[in-house]
Amino acid sequence: MIKTTGTKEKNLRKDMELIVGKYNILFSYDELYTYSTDSTNITNPNELADAVVFPQTTEQVSKIMKYANDNSIPVVARSAGTNLCGACLPKRGGIILNFAKMNRILEINKNNLICRVEPGVVIEDLQKAVEKYDLFYPPDPSNLKVSMIGGSIGLSSGGPHTFKYGSTKDYVIDLEIVLADGKIMHTGSSCSKDVTGYNLTQLFVGSEGTLGIVTQAVIRLIPKPEAKRVMLAYFDTLEDTSKTANDIISNLITPSVIDLMDNNTLKTVESFYPSGLKTDKTAALLIEIDGFKSNLDSQYTKIIEICKKNNSSYIQTASTKEEEERIWISRRSSFGATAKLAPNVLTEDVVVPRENIVPLVKGIREICNKYEIKTCIMGHIGDGNIHPNMAIDLRNPNEVNNFNIVKTKLFELALSLNGTLSGEHGIGCEKSYFIAKAVDPIKLELMKQFKYILDPKNILNPGKIFKD
Amino acid sequence: MIKTTGTKEKNLRKDMELIVGKYNILFSYDELYTYSTDSTNITNPNELADAVVFPQTTEQVSKIMKYANDNSIPVVARSAGTNLCGACLPKRGGIILNFAKMNRILEINKNNLICRVEPGVVIEDLQKAVEKYDLFYPPDPSNLKVSMIGGSIGLSSGGPHTFKYGSTKDYVIDLEIVLADGKIMHTGSSCSKDVTGYNLTQLFVGSEGTLGIVTQAVIRLIPKPEAKRVMLAYFDTLEDTSKTANDIISNLITPSVIDLMDNNTLKTVESFYPSGLKTDKTAALLIEIDGFKSNLDSQYTKIIEICKKNNSSYIQTASTKEEEERIWISRRSSFGATAKLAPNVLTEDVVVPRENIVPLVKGIREICNKYEIKTCIMGHIGDGNIHPNMAIDLRNPNEVNNFNIVKTKLFELALSLNGTLSGEHGIGCEKSYFIAKAVDPIKLELMKQFKYILDPKNILNPGKIFKD
Repeated sequence: MIKTTGTKEKNLRKDMELIVGKYNILFSYDELYTYSTDSTNITNPNELADAVVFPQTTEQVSKIMKYANDNSIPVVARSAGTNLCGACLPKRGGIILNFAKMNRILEINKNNLICRVEPGVVIEDLQKAVEKYDLFYPPDPSNLKVSMIGGSIGLSSGGPHTFKYGSTKDYVIDLEIVLADGKIMHTGSSCSKDVTGYNLTQLFVGSEGTLGIVTQAVIRLIPKPEAKRVMLAYFDTLEDTSKTANDIISNLITPSVIDLMDNNTLKTVESFYPSGLKTDKTAALLIEIDGFKSNLDSQYTKIIEICKKNNSSYIQTASTKEEEERIWISRRSSFGATAKLAPNVLTEDVVVPRENIVPLVKGIREICNKYEIKTCIMGHIGDGNIHPNMAIDLRNPNEVNNFNIVKTKLFELALSLNGTLSGEHGIGCEKSYFIAKAVDPIKLELMKQFKYILDPKNILNPGKIFKD
Repeated sequence: MIKTTGTKEKNLRKDMELIVGKYNILFSYDELYTYSTDSTNITNPNELADAVVFPQTTEQVSKIMKYANDNSIPVVARSAGTNLCGACLPKRGGIILNFAKMNRILEINKNNLICRVEPGVVIEDLQKAVEKYDLFYPPDPSNLKVSMIGGSIGLSSGGPHTFKYGSTKDYVIDLEIVLADGKIMHTGSSCSKDVTGYNLTQLFVGSEGTLGIVTQAVIRLIPKPEAKRVMLAYFDTLEDTSKTANDIISNLITPSVIDLMDNNTLKTVESFYPSGLKTDKTAALLIEIDGFKSNLDSQYTKIIEICKKNNSSYIQTASTKEEEERIWISRRSSFGATAKLAPNVLTEDVVVPRENIVPLVKGIREICNKYEIKTCIMGHIGDGNIHPNMAIDLRNPNEVNNFNIVKTKLFELALSLNGTLSGEHGIGCEKSYFIAKAVDPIKLELMKQFKYILDPKNILNPGKIFKD
């Protein structure tokens, strides 16, 4: 926020009102504060937006962008604000373009296996809507009950099902983009197979609103799996846990989910949401398989056999919906349970090739212990994507300092293991300080040139991805 | 070819020899002619390369590019030259960078589910190599016995298995690229889940060598399906054929192949490669399913039931490897059989959302009949991607003229049905004249700007994708 009461801001709000109407703009201090934060927990009261605007049509977004570009006003696209990397914090004030009111599912086409949506559609709502047609939209970030497809496209978010089904990038086939100067562009077509010209769709997916504003997306769907089964297998060593994952996949089984929870995660979840988790085990694997009902039993049996062969000390199977749900609750509660350990939870998202998962997890534990950060380690072992959930008190400067050291050390660890900073959460302003170490310098230079072409005044989500 | 005997060309060849050695460069007229053609059949003797160079390392490619850029010499990357859109014709002479000698599989990593390859690896060789590890690389362009991964990345080629498994773009996760000025860049990482910075990998996939030269690729693999089954179902109307495809998918079955052959294809294949095809039927669907052995029978039965319900007048099933092979031969022979109708076969690659497949196929037939082009229509009905194989005599100006009219009319038809020019063959110089009608003008402008940033002297495969 530059100055909430200055003439410039007053003009901005008046002009925005002319575009979206007075009920679609917020600018009281409380409102600006509320929308100038996201799930990263790092709101800076000195970095508030000047206006939160709720467009309802692409044309309104186009007008807003033209205005913002003409007047060099930063614009931050925001849907539910559930991201974990500071991707929609208004680092330089300006307009928050809130897509909550552009939330229509415009088309679900069963024969073409696609849907067309606005950015404000809640992911779970989309999943439920397409399920009515026996279709499936697999990407499932943990917060899918509130998070929206726009943010999901901006960050190419994933979720537990990514190992088998891929992440958001694998489903977006066409985007309607409003460019920095207000021009409206389509990147692809409604054909999932289309090599007509450069693939600009994927340049925008994961670009965190720094290259253009998504106002509509065509999303590929797949037929819904008929059934699924889930189990939780415990291990006494990380080596056995990792070998189990490898052996399952080597046996031609592609689990729809193969997630890891470490001992701290098991203990923390069990203490706040008791469900009978074995808190004396080193790690557990949540394994879900899906497909045709008739085929699940043999895979399930095979997986149990592999777990046992790799010294699994306890396997919790599920034969009813309720038992399945109990297993899932333990996994889904891990973030919430960590949040009970301290006022704030910060989550990282490092990723390595799967063969390096054991040194990654052990290294994370070592680093977090050394700097006394309470950490529950979990993540998607199939993808080599690990989330350390770190409970800290952001009011304690010492903890914040330690957290910052830990964060850098985690990134360094991931890079030393042939991995990278982020598998599905994005870079935002939280990891931008480290991107030059993670990305080929020539690629980074090229990224900057593309950014300059698309946004010469740097009004689109400034201060994200690139180091300020 | 500028002038084969000029000083400029002599210098070029001498300088190339210094980089790659004298056994890795060709420049006799016959050799230049041979390598200045591709499977499009449109070699122009006035547009020959000045030298065909066989680099063996990335460093050599880098030196060649630096030289070419300093001297403004066009460079056309070529692997097997099996493309069907004139993608590696040297429209402005210069260097053909032939990757036949960079053909090593550098790594197959079962735990990480990736391999690392040089561009000259033959696709079938790669498939066989990874199969030994029980892994699967699905993209299977028809000419996979000779075509190479480099060209496949340049065109994001697909194949019959694309409906279930996606095309080349869905498997490439990192590229080593030599840029126009000789700089070497990596676009991604060895993690299949990676959102660290813009997705430049996908900008290069399908860019037909116009943005940079691929010298290495990291490719994602998946566990190999345990078994497969195939059948051929005949129909008397296109409507029944199309409805069958829709109904199979609506029943949650995702066939690994669901390909269409029209009556002309059946007749032509049968007359040259008799295998008992029913030549009195309007169309046939080749349907393959894969997965766990134990699960195929129920799907197979269900598919037969759906075919019968939709009036399939004959279903050829296969219960032995030999019977399966006989069905596949009919499909694989369709291009070769068409080639026996006239000296040349030109193939198009239009794509529409699947709901428009009937008007597309009928429209193609109508257009080809009107202009008296013998055409066998086949393609991937699941993806809405249709290949009319057109037999013509390129020495006959009248036929060539008619073919050019037909081509434009096919593109117009595809666009009118919400589709586009190319699903998996690319644009090259054959469709570039039409791209402005198929792509959003703002996207096209942006593509040109990206091209200019990456290749300001327009030396990388000039005259491709963009209209000259």
